[in-house]
Amino acid sequence: MAVHTLASTTGSVSLGPATALSCRECGERFDLAPIFACQSCFGPLEAAYDLPTGDPEALRARIEAGPNNIWRYAPLLPVPEDVATKPNLNPGFTKLVKADNLARELGVTGGLHVKDDSGNPTHSFKDRVVAIALEAARAFGFTTLSCSSTGNLAGAVGAAAARAGLRSCVFIPHDLEAGKVVMAAVYGGELVGIEGTYDDVNRFCSELIGDPLGEGWGFVNVNLRPYYAEGSKTLAYEICEQLGWRLPDNLVIPIASGSQLTKIDKGLKELVGLGLVEDRPYKIFGAQAEGCSPVSRAFKDGHDVVRPVKPSTIAKSLAIGNPADGPYVLDICRRTGGAVEDVTDEQVVDAIKLLARTEGIFAETAGGVTVGVLRKLIETGQLDPAAETVVLNTGDGLKTLDAVAPTTGPTATIRPSLDAFRQAGLAG
Amino acid sequence: MAVHTLASTTGSVSLGPATALSCRECGERFDLAPIFACQSCFGPLEAAYDLPTGDPEALRARIEAGPNNIWRYAPLLPVPEDVATKPNLNPGFTKLVKADNLARELGVTGGLHVKDDSGNPTHSFKDRVVAIALEAARAFGFTTLSCSSTGNLAGAVGAAAARAGLRSCVFIPHDLEAGKVVMAAVYGGELVGIEGTYDDVNRFCSELIGDPLGEGWGFVNVNLRPYYAEGSKTLAYEICEQLGWRLPDNLVIPIASGSQLTKIDKGLKELVGLGLVEDRPYKIFGAQAEGCSPVSRAFKDGHDVVRPVKPSTIAKSLAIGNPADGPYVLDICRRTGGAVEDVTDEQVVDAIKLLARTEGIFAETAGGVTVGVLRKLIETGQLDPAAETVVLNTGDGLKTLDAVAPTTGPTATIRPSLDAFRQAGLAG
Repeated sequence: MAVHTLASTTGSVSLGPATALSCRECGERFDLAPIFACQSCFGPLEAAYDLPTGDPEALRARIEAGPNNIWRYAPLLPVPEDVATKPNLNPGFTKLVKADNLARELGVTGGLHVKDDSGNPTHSFKDRVVAIALEAARAFGFTTLSCSSTGNLAGAVGAAAARAGLRSCVFIPHDLEAGKVVMAAVYGGELVGIEGTYDDVNRFCSELIGDPLGEGWGFVNVNLRPYYAEGSKTLAYEICEQLGWRLPDNLVIPIASGSQLTKIDKGLKELVGLGLVEDRPYKIFGAQAEGCSPVSRAFKDGHDVVRPVKPSTIAKSLAIGNPADGPYVLDICRRTGGAVEDVTDEQVVDAIKLLARTEGIFAETAGGVTVGVLRKLIETGQLDPAAETVVLNTGDGLKTLDAVAPTTGPTATIRPSLDAFRQAGLAG
Repeated sequence: MAVHTLASTTGSVSLGPATALSCRECGERFDLAPIFACQSCFGPLEAAYDLPTGDPEALRARIEAGPNNIWRYAPLLPVPEDVATKPNLNPGFTKLVKADNLARELGVTGGLHVKDDSGNPTHSFKDRVVAIALEAARAFGFTTLSCSSTGNLAGAVGAAAARAGLRSCVFIPHDLEAGKVVMAAVYGGELVGIEGTYDDVNRFCSELIGDPLGEGWGFVNVNLRPYYAEGSKTLAYEICEQLGWRLPDNLVIPIASGSQLTKIDKGLKELVGLGLVEDRPYKIFGAQAEGCSPVSRAFKDGHDVVRPVKPSTIAKSLAIGNPADGPYVLDICRRTGGAVEDVTDEQVVDAIKLLARTEGIFAETAGGVTVGVLRKLIETGQLDPAAETVVLNTGDGLKTLDAVAPTTGPTATIRPSLDAFRQAGLAG
C-alpha cells in the first residue's frame, strides 16, 4: 500500500503522550507518521502511548481544572501539550443527560443516561475525531485537510479547517441531497462532487494520497486515521468523569466502521489502568440498523469475521457495509458480555420520537438506532434493566429531518376561534 | 386587558431573588403572578429583585462553582434555589469564541468574540428564556406550556415541556415550511396549525388566555413573559464571566421584539451593581434586517417611537414589525453611545458565509444580521475597531439552510480520476 509521507517531518513530531504507531495485528511499531497500515502485515495502525504514571488524584485534579472540552484530556491524547491554545472548534464535554423519563418508558431501573453529542460545534461526534486529526495534520506540516464523506464528516472537516486557517478539500458523491451539500460547502473550503458512488469517491481519494498531487494533504479518515480514531476515546473519558469517575454497567454504542466502539473500550481500559476509575466489569453493546447490519449478523451467527453487505437504511451515517473494525467489535462485545443488535428503519423512527418526547432530545437517525436497540435489548432480555446504562446519541435530528418528516406533523389545523379550539378537544 | 390568573397561587410563589413585578412605565409593583401588563397604566411588567448583597468575591466563587449552564446564575434569576435539580434542558454557558480570523477580515484590532448560542440544546437562545418561563409555569401550577411561534420558539417549548414532563401545546400558522413543522412537532406535544397569519395566531392566543379554556396554560411569551424575558440576562452574565469578569467595549445584538437587547443591558448593569465587574462605559449596538428595520429607521430619524412595518426579509426569526421593546432599545443604544443599523438580505447571506469561512460557525440568518451589521458599523465609522467587541449569534444555520442554499455549492464536479482532478486545478 503506497503511502505518501513527508520525509522531513516523519519521526520528529511531538504529539504529547503518543510515542509510536503500533500494528493492531502483529504489534510492530512505527515512528509517528501519516501512515495507516502496517508495513509488515498490512494490519491497521493505532496510536501507542506513554501515559502519565503516578498519583491518580493529581491527574484527576488536573483534568477537572482543564477546559470544558476534550482538551481537558490532552494528557491522554495524541496532541501537543499546548493544544488548547491553538485555534480549533473545542469540541466535547457534551451533556450526559440523566434520562429518567426514557428510563420509565423502557423499564430501566438501574439508571439511564444519554450521552448527547448533538451538542458539538457541528452537531455530531465527528468534531471530536476531526479535532485530533487536525493536530496531527499540523504536526506533519499538512496544508490541506481532506476527507471523503456523505454527511457529518464533511461539515466537521470544513468547519475545523476554516477555524484553524487551513485549506480544506472535501470529496462527496455528486448526487448528494441539496441540504447536505449546503452544510458541507458553507464553510468555504473546496467541495468536489465526484461522478460516481461513495465507493468511487473513496477509491479516488486513495489514489490521490498515493500521488504527488496529494502532497501536503491530510485525509482525516485515511492517512490521519490512526490519530483521528483516537478522538472517540474522549467519549469514554467524559462518560466516566460525568458519572463521578466511575464506569457504567452498560454502554450502547452505534456501529458504522466500528472504530468508535473499539476506541471507547480502549478509553475505558486506560482509565482503569491509570487508576482514575475503579476496575469493575462493564458490558458493551453495539447497535446497527437492520438495513446495514453485518456486525449484528456475524454476532448472532457466532462468526469472527464480518461478511460485507450493501447498505439500505435511513441511518445513512452508519451505512458502512464493510466495517473495518468489525472483528474487533465482535471481540469486545463478546468479551465484555454485551451483544450486537439491530433494528428496522421503522423502529429507528419510533426511537427518535421516543427520545424527543421523553427527554427533549432530537437525535439523528444514529441516535434512533442506539435507543431502538436499547429497547430491543431489554425486551429480549439481553440487557439487564436493573443495571446502569449509557446510550449514545452521536448526531442531530436537524441533519436527518427526512427520517421523521413523513410521520411528524400538527395534531390539528383549525380556524382561529375558541369554538374551533373547543371542538378540536385540545383544552388541557 | 383581561388576564386569567390562578388565585390559589398568586402572591405565594417563591422564585428566588425575584420579589415582585414592577411596571416599566409607572413603576407600580405587583405580587409575582402570571400577569404581564400593569393594572394601572397597561405598561409592560418586569421582574424586580432583592439581589444578593455582600462580598462580590464570594458570589463570584459561588457562580464559578456552579453547573456549566444558566443555573450557575440562579442567585440572579427569577427561579427557585433548587432549580438545577429539576428536569430541564440546562441551556446556556455556550461558547464565547475568540474570533481572530473574522477580526482580521473586518479590521477589528481590539479583540472580537462571537457569543455562539447555536450550542444550546435546541440550537437557539430561546432555550434560555423558555427555561426561566418553565420555572414560572411550575411555580404557578400551570400544566400546559404554550406559545405562538413561527420557528425557534416552538422547538424550544416542545423540548423543554417534554423533558419537564409537562403537556405542551404550540400554535403555528398552518402554512409553515415543512421542515419547521417537523422541528416543532417531533417532541410529541400538541401542535396546532391556525388557518391565518402569524398575527391571527397571536390574536387567538390572547383570546385563549382570557378564556376559561386557557385555565392552567402558561404561554411563555405572553402571560409568563415577565419571567421568560429575564432569561436573556444570562447572555450578559456569561459574556462578562467568559471575558474574565469584565465588560466588553461593544456588544452587537439582534433586534426582534428588542427584549433580548434590553435584558442584556439590564444584566450588565446588575453585574456592575453587584461589584462582579468593574464599572466602565460600554456601547450597545442593535442589528436589524433592512426588510424589517423599524428600530433602525427610528434611530436614524432621531425618533423616540417606532413606526410598525410589514416585515419582508429572510431573517424570519427577527421579523417582528412592531417590536414591543423598541423605545427601550432606542434609549439604551443612544444612552450608551451605540447605534442601530440594518443590512440587506444579500449582506445577511454574505455575513453568514463570512462567519462560517473564518471561524467555522454556521449561523442562522439572525447571526448573519449581527455580523453583517458589525461590518457595516465599522465601515461607516460607527463602531471603533480598536475597541473590544462581542457579537451575538443567536441561532443555528441548520435551521435556515434555505438562506444560503441558492449560492452555496460544490467548487467543481469531476470524474473520479487524477487527470480530471488535475484539470480542475484544485491540487493544494
